[in-house]
Amino acid sequence: MLDFGESAEHGLSTTAGSIFKIIRDQGPLYPADIVRRTGLAKSTVSVYIDRLISAGLIREEDLPERKRRKLKVAESAGYVIGVDLGQTHLHVGLCDLEAEVRDSVAESVDLLNSSPESILARVVRAARELSARNSLDPRSLSGIGFGVPGPVDYAHGVPVSPPVMPGWDRFPLASVLAREFTCPVFVDNDVNILALAERDKGAAAQDPDFLYIKVGSGIGAGIMVNGRIYRGCKGAAGDIGHISINGDDTLCHCGNRGCLEAIAGGRALALRGDAAARSGASRFLAERMSEGAAATPELIAKGAAMGDEECLMLVISSGKCLGDVIAKLVNFFNPSLIVVGGGLANLGERYIASVRESVYGRSTPLATSDLIIKRSTLNERSGVIGASILVLDEIFSLKNVGRLVRNPSS
Amino acid sequence: MLDFGESAEHGLSTTAGSIFKIIRDQGPLYPADIVRRTGLAKSTVSVYIDRLISAGLIREEDLPERKRRKLKVAESAGYVIGVDLGQTHLHVGLCDLEAEVRDSVAESVDLLNSSPESILARVVRAARELSARNSLDPRSLSGIGFGVPGPVDYAHGVPVSPPVMPGWDRFPLASVLAREFTCPVFVDNDVNILALAERDKGAAAQDPDFLYIKVGSGIGAGIMVNGRIYRGCKGAAGDIGHISINGDDTLCHCGNRGCLEAIAGGRALALRGDAAARSGASRFLAERMSEGAAATPELIAKGAAMGDEECLMLVISSGKCLGDVIAKLVNFFNPSLIVVGGGLANLGERYIASVRESVYGRSTPLATSDLIIKRSTLNERSGVIGASILVLDEIFSLKNVGRLVRNPSS
Repeated sequence: MLDFGESAEHGLSTTAGSIFKIIRDQGPLYPADIVRRTGLAKSTVSVYIDRLISAGLIREEDLPERKRRKLKVAESAGYVIGVDLGQTHLHVGLCDLEAEVRDSVAESVDLLNSSPESILARVVRAARELSARNSLDPRSLSGIGFGVPGPVDYAHGVPVSPPVMPGWDRFPLASVLAREFTCPVFVDNDVNILALAERDKGAAAQDPDFLYIKVGSGIGAGIMVNGRIYRGCKGAAGDIGHISINGDDTLCHCGNRGCLEAIAGGRALALRGDAAARSGASRFLAERMSEGAAATPELIAKGAAMGDEECLMLVISSGKCLGDVIAKLVNFFNPSLIVVGGGLANLGERYIASVRESVYGRSTPLATSDLIIKRSTLNERSGVIGASILVLDEIFSLKNVGRLVRNPSS
Repeated sequence: MLDFGESAEHGLSTTAGSIFKIIRDQGPLYPADIVRRTGLAKSTVSVYIDRLISAGLIREEDLPERKRRKLKVAESAGYVIGVDLGQTHLHVGLCDLEAEVRDSVAESVDLLNSSPESILARVVRAARELSARNSLDPRSLSGIGFGVPGPVDYAHGVPVSPPVMPGWDRFPLASVLAREFTCPVFVDNDVNILALAERDKGAAAQDPDFLYIKVGSGIGAGIMVNGRIYRGCKGAAGDIGHISINGDDTLCHCGNRGCLEAIAGGRALALRGDAAARSGASRFLAERMSEGAAATPELIAKGAAMGDEECLMLVISSGKCLGDVIAKLVNFFNPSLIVVGGGLANLGERYIASVRESVYGRSTPLATSDLIIKRSTLNERSGVIGASILVLDEIFSLKNVGRLVRNPSS
């Protein structure tokens, strides 16, 4: 069955939702801007603005000295919780309706050796703590967004066969939290969550079509089509870390050989750095390791920056390998923008240049003619922000805004 | 700027458009079906059905003996022209509003040695002829859809750097035809056009997300996301024929080495067949070629079917190579369905089995857990049908249907 989105909803909801969406995405805006951008009659826009204000969804800017005021999201009319779970960290943030972090909690975790129940208990405790110290009833939360490091069945809010989360397969994350807080809960893959942060607050600000590629220990892509995450039929879209590199037989933790992640991921780079230190190929790494340092990607980047040729070669060949795979995706997907994030994006400009060189050299000229490849500008709060955006996108869907406007008491 | 689609249109247009879309995609339907599928009030649906009937867009089924009649598209309320241009053929069809071919013209062309002006003159002549012999004023056509074998800047209706169409780069195909027939004209890549035919009339019937892969002399993919063609930023999405196969240095006509098309395309297969005949590796091919036959993919398929081991090996290795690339795309895009069409899809079930084997062996288990790979069911009329669907999708957009309903005289 063809999905016709939310457009079969009746007129009121669609129009209210559309006006709210324009204010949310492009605001603050004057009513006249909205008239121009929608093509709706001035009187129609005026009616809906009044309704959106009455429903508490938008407000006028705080500009007491001016007469004409722009409209913006009533950012304090509600709060959401964003949860960013990684292999070693748990960040929980209280965010307003513009996905600004108002307060947050950061904890260390050992995901590989933790049960979902124990992690969830810590999430619940953190969310209660954030509510309490901001004088909010935890039952008044508008929603919870949750990013996890693995594939997710988005419709059901459950992780699916996550390689780094043993015991989490189909664990009912969303429904357990939804019962606990009586609010909507949305769970997604962490790379998708970061892509949302890039879309609204990062390097892809307001770009409706782009790829976000995270290169850390693992490698994954967030695919944004027309401003929405493309998740694929099993929530596995963007799982590029296990694309095979023909002719390479490096064993990957997934059991296959020649996976991109096993060759160009952070762990692979560290292993190569370690070997370069032991063989003496890199004097810089050998010296640092003799002083007790580990051959981390950061150390290799430092070596490259300080002129160690072997470190530089490691950085360049890692970028080249990633670029070879991205080149194939560019031919297939023809994006206008690729944002590279994750730990390895911090290897420096030479790394990104090496990625670019591979892509421009191996994709078709047409597909690369307007292509921009740049580094992510996200930081450690971006997971929480992205998780908040996930839930805000859902609770502020055209349909939901329409319902809120029709029934402002809800 | 985020695209919010057509949803900012006012309520009337959106609701009318949505109801029409349901009837077009899923009809014939009873009014009660529409009530159930939209969640709209019975009275609302009734009002819009009357308006859609008055505007001439839908009609009741011809079932004189029954009381309750289903609603369907008023297929004869207008006509469109579908144009399918290939390297050696020009098919022009007159289609009704359900994309059924009512009449058609088929001609041979030599695209490589023809100017766009001369081809266009033949298209105009064919469209006039079809109109005349069906007693239609050519100025009453609802629109023209045009498929060309190369990348297209869809917004402007112009081919962009098409490798097999020298002299066509940015030729104003759409605007010249639009002036000639005073109707909307939409131009797209031929593989996208075929993907539309698969969506509405083929192996992907009513599937909103799938990949259509055409393997002929060239290799290309049509990417369907949520029922719509994904074209990428330069109209180059799906150009998978030039994805490089690491470790292979076969020269491609594009100037690069190791392109999928140069290794697994129809021309490459024919070259291998030729070599197998000359070396005597294939007795079947050697015999047929001594009788004057050429080592076409069809002949190789025949050899394989008749038990010639070398022919079978050629078929299997060709499928394997295609499968290796598709496996990477599956990890990235996680489709639920891949339809393989084009001349090589006729190599037989062993070819498709070989594609499947590669994909299942090299993609992640999650991405392939529900994946179906099947052969296209399209035929030589599908290009014309797809081109008609292209224009029907556009002229029957939610917005346009809304306008027609508001202003039934137009």
